Amino acid sequence: MPTLILLRHGQSQWNLENRFTGWVDVDLTAQGEAEAAKGGELIGQAGLAIDRCFTSVLTRAIRTSWLALAAAGQTFVPEVKDWRLNERHYGGLTGLNKAETAEKHGEEQVKIWRRSYDIPPPPLAAGSEYDFSKDRRYAGADLPDTESLKTTLERVQPYWESDIVPCLQAGETLLVAAHGNSLRAIVKLLFDVGDEAIVGVEIPTGNPLVVELDADLKPTAARYLDADRAQALPQV
Amino acid sequence: MPTLILLRHGQSQWNLENRFTGWVDVDLTAQGEAEAAKGGELIGQAGLAIDRCFTSVLTRAIRTSWLALAAAGQTFVPEVKDWRLNERHYGGLTGLNKAETAEKHGEEQVKIWRRSYDIPPPPLAAGSEYDFSKDRRYAGADLPDTESLKTTLERVQPYWESDIVPCLQAGETLLVAAHGNSLRAIVKLLFDVGDEAIVGVEIPTGNPLVVELDADLKPTAARYLDADRAQALPQV
Repeated sequence: MPTLILLRHGQSQWNLENRFTGWVDVDLTAQGEAEAAKGGELIGQAGLAIDRCFTSVLTRAIRTSWLALAAAGQTFVPEVKDWRLNERHYGGLTGLNKAETAEKHGEEQVKIWRRSYDIPPPPLAAGSEYDFSKDRRYAGADLPDTESLKTTLERVQPYWESDIVPCLQAGETLLVAAHGNSLRAIVKLLFDVGDEAIVGVEIPTGNPLVVELDADLKPTAARYLDADRAQALPQV
Repeated sequence: MPTLILLRHGQSQWNLENRFTGWVDVDLTAQGEAEAAKGGELIGQAGLAIDRCFTSVLTRAIRTSWLALAAAGQTFVPEVKDWRLNERHYGGLTGLNKAETAEKHGEEQVKIWRRSYDIPPPPLAAGSEYDFSKDRRYAGADLPDTESLKTTLERVQPYWESDIVPCLQAGETLLVAAHGNSLRAIVKLLFDVGDEAIVGVEIPTGNPLVVELDADLKPTAARYLDADRAQALPQV
């Protein structure tokens, strides 16, 4: 039966500095590298044989997939990278740390942007140092300039349906190494989580979430491989 | 115009122990990792923007591509892995060190296997600890049980023509991170090197060989990015 392994990247330099990262291509810290390798070891120890790996076009997720595949002894697995698995685009908040953001916009407003399903931050200003439109990894893509979790899901979903679902329908075991919000989008789609509830779903970093599916791709079981660092899961 | 970057993996544990490796999935040493990263730095410094990366299904070449892409700041490049870019299969010599091989088969015979174009070592014995036929990365493939450089080329060439040539014809810049003998096969095809001469072509490890091609995929220029560790190249 199809199996989906969701793996959230570990600590990046900007996680450490408490800055809104979004699409900025910040690398993993040494701790983030260790988290990824630990996730891969757990996958190997669980005897999971990955058929294919999906990741974003951001280095912290890509290197998480690499470190995990290596630690699982499965470097040879085919890999696919797509921007539609990127983190949520934080628009005008990109690059700000949490204190700067609160100072600029007020604590309450920041909480709304972080905790609401469908309210995006202001767009990234034209000419910002974080302008992604000329980055060749996005050539030809219709790029957002800010995203809510809702609009993040709206670009994850078509990719999920066109590229990931067919592999699951073929019975494959997939690793998706991605980001807090692109993984939330997948969890919402898979478990049919409500708009308000999904905002509270926290996927721990570097802890593989293994979801077993039936032939209709309905979850039949879900578990974190590191039980000591598990978070609550939607009911299956 | 199309550009091809050939990168031979750096030192592996069995290179260090002077053992015939072939298809055994031995990892890089710390020195091999450093060689791969150095190669990637040189690619980045040369301003080469890679469109696609090809590698084998062996960890030492795959991790060479990963380390090089990361050091070049181009982790997001699409990657393809195929067993037809594997190292030459050393058949019954697999796992033996050079001294054991000479003792078992005689110095002269070993020299013939290593230096001839078309004489393969004896086949890998059935039931050998190095039997690759049950390894899932080769599922569905028609596997050899030993190879000469000639038969290595005979499985590289169809892949070269079906998968790599079309990308070059589209004008792409490609990284091929592979092995001494699969890269020799590509050099022979590209530069039309003779059967005897190709055996003497040594591609240094971790030193990107950049080949510029014209629209007919004839080489117009070729250079090693680390000029201090360059080896003689076929004439373009």
